Amino acid sequence: MKIELEQISPMEIEKRSFEIITEELQGRTFDPWQEPIIKRVIHTTADFDYADNLVFSEGVVQTAHNLFREGACIVTDTKMAMSGINKTALATLGGEVYNFITDEDVIAQAKEQGLTRSAVCMDKAAKLDRPVIFAIGNAPTALVRLYELMQEGYRPALIIGVPVGFVNVVQAKELILSADVPSIIARGRKGGSNVAAAIVNALMYQLTRN
Amino acid sequence: MKIELEQISPMEIEKRSFEIITEELQGRTFDPWQEPIIKRVIHTTADFDYADNLVFSEGVVQTAHNLFREGACIVTDTKMAMSGINKTALATLGGEVYNFITDEDVIAQAKEQGLTRSAVCMDKAAKLDRPVIFAIGNAPTALVRLYELMQEGYRPALIIGVPVGFVNVVQAKELILSADVPSIIARGRKGGSNVAAAIVNALMYQLTRN
Repeated sequence: MKIELEQISPMEIEKRSFEIITEELQGRTFDPWQEPIIKRVIHTTADFDYADNLVFSEGVVQTAHNLFREGACIVTDTKMAMSGINKTALATLGGEVYNFITDEDVIAQAKEQGLTRSAVCMDKAAKLDRPVIFAIGNAPTALVRLYELMQEGYRPALIIGVPVGFVNVVQAKELILSADVPSIIARGRKGGSNVAAAIVNALMYQLTRN
Repeated sequence: MKIELEQISPMEIEKRSFEIITEELQGRTFDPWQEPIIKRVIHTTADFDYADNLVFSEGVVQTAHNLFREGACIVTDTKMAMSGINKTALATLGGEVYNFITDEDVIAQAKEQGLTRSAVCMDKAAKLDRPVIFAIGNAPTALVRLYELMQEGYRPALIIGVPVGFVNVVQAKELILSADVPSIIARGRKGGSNVAAAIVNALMYQLTRN
């Protein structure tokens, strides 16, 4: 078999990828605010299911942009999601990203209370004195804990809720969808730390690449 | 709608997830060496396509185990893949993981030669004086560069080749499959840094969790 590589410069690869994604979506139309986010998630996963899975609360993209402009911080549930967030774009916007999963107080509290560390991280994030964008790509328990904190009066600025998996993942996302909070959710089992990071990056690029 | 969460302890979630994956695979049988790897990738992505996509070269799982036992190091193409590798398991095996993507020499050389930084990282990895397990979850250009290095006589100890995307991804994977090198490849467009890390972790867990 002859394997032929497309001759293309590194700078052109992303542009060409988005062209292919657009072609394969065969004229499907999306909300223009949401479209770059949906396409970036497909770019990150090569999985066109996300053309149908992603659920945006009313006006959430504009809300996210305002939050970035106002210096909201991002909290992730995993180091991997934090690692995937584009630090150059984040610095341009003057933003910061935190992950508490290896903090000693979090590890101790999780053990003591029989909770996941991801859940305990949400408690710690809720104590920050700034608006928080949550980017949750792995742990449904983090979303469940956020839901409980909302019942107690806490108000996340935005929840990007895209954990992946088989146990309580679908339900945890539906909990967030049932709550009155700005959110971007990947309905169903699919998602991941890469998807969480891709959504954060897509939101930032709408501000930094125009 | 009533949303009911399954009552389950954090420690049981992974076990229950693998049970669900096994149920949904409906009695499909796999090579017993490969099965935990396939299932962990499905666990990481909630995408059953990986039951068909993953291609293992002859005896590659045992080769990987020997490499871990002999202190081979891992080189990834992204910080995100590095971040997803379980550091506890890696430390138990006495292994190390490297990523060179933000190294100044790599950045300079990529700019100078019009290459991706991921490709240049492969050159740097090939100069290590130890066997290298490559875990490539993002950049097809890294796989293409590895192929070129092999033509020049370099011998990677193992290539985990699971980049995701639309431009030269399919072809880059076929190049590696056409070469005489131990490999685990996700055929087609799908893959990702999370998939690369999941495969490394699955291989390590076969040694550390038994």
